[in-house]
Amino acid sequence: MDLTHCSLNSITVRSASLPELVALAAAHGFGGIGLWRDSYTGIGAAQAARHARTADLRVTSVCRGGMFPQPTAEQRARTHDDNLRAIDEAHTLGADCLVLVCGPAHDRDQAGARAQIADGIAALLDHAGGAGVRLAIEPMHPMMAADRSAITSLGEAVDLVERFASPWVGLTVDTYHVWWDIALPDLLKRAADSLYSVQLADWVLPIQGQLSSRGMPGDGHIDMPGFVELTRSVGYGGMIEVEVLSDRWWATPPADVAQAAAEALRQIPERAGQQPDPETPAESC
Amino acid sequence: MDLTHCSLNSITVRSASLPELVALAAAHGFGGIGLWRDSYTGIGAAQAARHARTADLRVTSVCRGGMFPQPTAEQRARTHDDNLRAIDEAHTLGADCLVLVCGPAHDRDQAGARAQIADGIAALLDHAGGAGVRLAIEPMHPMMAADRSAITSLGEAVDLVERFASPWVGLTVDTYHVWWDIALPDLLKRAADSLYSVQLADWVLPIQGQLSSRGMPGDGHIDMPGFVELTRSVGYGGMIEVEVLSDRWWATPPADVAQAAAEALRQIPERAGQQPDPETPAESC
Repeated sequence: MDLTHCSLNSITVRSASLPELVALAAAHGFGGIGLWRDSYTGIGAAQAARHARTADLRVTSVCRGGMFPQPTAEQRARTHDDNLRAIDEAHTLGADCLVLVCGPAHDRDQAGARAQIADGIAALLDHAGGAGVRLAIEPMHPMMAADRSAITSLGEAVDLVERFASPWVGLTVDTYHVWWDIALPDLLKRAADSLYSVQLADWVLPIQGQLSSRGMPGDGHIDMPGFVELTRSVGYGGMIEVEVLSDRWWATPPADVAQAAAEALRQIPERAGQQPDPETPAESC
Repeated sequence: MDLTHCSLNSITVRSASLPELVALAAAHGFGGIGLWRDSYTGIGAAQAARHARTADLRVTSVCRGGMFPQPTAEQRARTHDDNLRAIDEAHTLGADCLVLVCGPAHDRDQAGARAQIADGIAALLDHAGGAGVRLAIEPMHPMMAADRSAITSLGEAVDLVERFASPWVGLTVDTYHVWWDIALPDLLKRAADSLYSVQLADWVLPIQGQLSSRGMPGDGHIDMPGFVELTRSVGYGGMIEVEVLSDRWWATPPADVAQAAAEALRQIPERAGQQPDPETPAESC
């Protein structure tokens, strides 16, 4: 792939400061950066936005809002307030979307968690629309059902997005979370108009902890060229992010990780016409 | 649950010999045992069958056949031959079913793996029917997609079973593999007549390796009573197995593990009428 069509997520180079992340992304010719909120906590979203703009880097995602299921009404209210702040930050950053990691069940109540997730997203719609920030539900790998999200498959996420039928609710799809699904091609077709963010990480063995065992694209078991082609074939025109949560790569100097990520993305073929689309609601608001 | 409705899987007490497993199951009042093939390799299936019969224990499952996707025709032929032997062993043991762990993809080709799985099962049907052994496709947790099975969801497994429409092809459903699925209740309803085996293990964190991080029922995040009730409500009449692959429990003396498993199962409520059904094709042949 042409790196101008790609984005470097902050968590991939976790120990880099925001200015270092921006410098690394710019040096390798990335077109954008994805930001976990902790990457700009120190300097604030406005200052982070200036850094990105100065380097001509688009902010492709902010991670995260979500965590909707909470055991008490008070905790749900606090979570809601934090989600409003996340929307404001994504607006300030001009991000393509705010990623929603929807949160796990409490007390083994999956159905209850899913109901709280739907309610929690509904309660954000007015604020998201007012800020021009698209909410991107991220289906998470079922390995993370107990600690990250009760939304455990792309099918479930697409169903949820279709129920909202809102221009402010769509999807982020990460290879790592969905690659195993026999319905992946069909679901991506259904999701096409709601695909706000696409992320890459590879599945490498053994799994050492459910969160940070991920591999650089090409190092594992996932057909990365097939996945990228699939997203382009259904019309996804945005950038493709590399987001690798990995104890191994986190122990490596960020400059080396950025270099490895850039090389990994360049290895993935990109056919003519597979270009990002500069027009998105997040920019035009 | 009444332990006469339950079965103790050999892998739960991995270091026990087959006579020790039988003695432990009988001492706690289990109605059956599930056998991994390595549990009787030393003494042979016929001798293992005599042990079980003498203790009045039903053999609820044999694990495993499968591993259908192979890189060469020669390896596929060898795997096929081994699967025929597994069917013969399940027949000798009078087992309720032979569990199929279908195998992962090679060269990142999920679709190719799925085709080889379907072909591989089809090639076993005559032998299974002749031996009166039911083949139970086990959908595996997506965490095991790269090393255990390309059949990664209950929905995919039910679709496959329905395509065969054979009295010799059904399902084994293990809480650990399917608990995260929003469609679980609907899929179990669809699977009802094909449910040959039900197994329990709990989801405990953190995950330390994709295979053997499992918990004793009740120790983790899965709604065990809800799952058991669901299987009974759709008409599953067989025994319920406890199959816990766990580094932690494997480091514990088998007698203590059997005790813990028995207590865990007794904690799960069982409503009147939730009885195992003694009639199964495997027994009547």
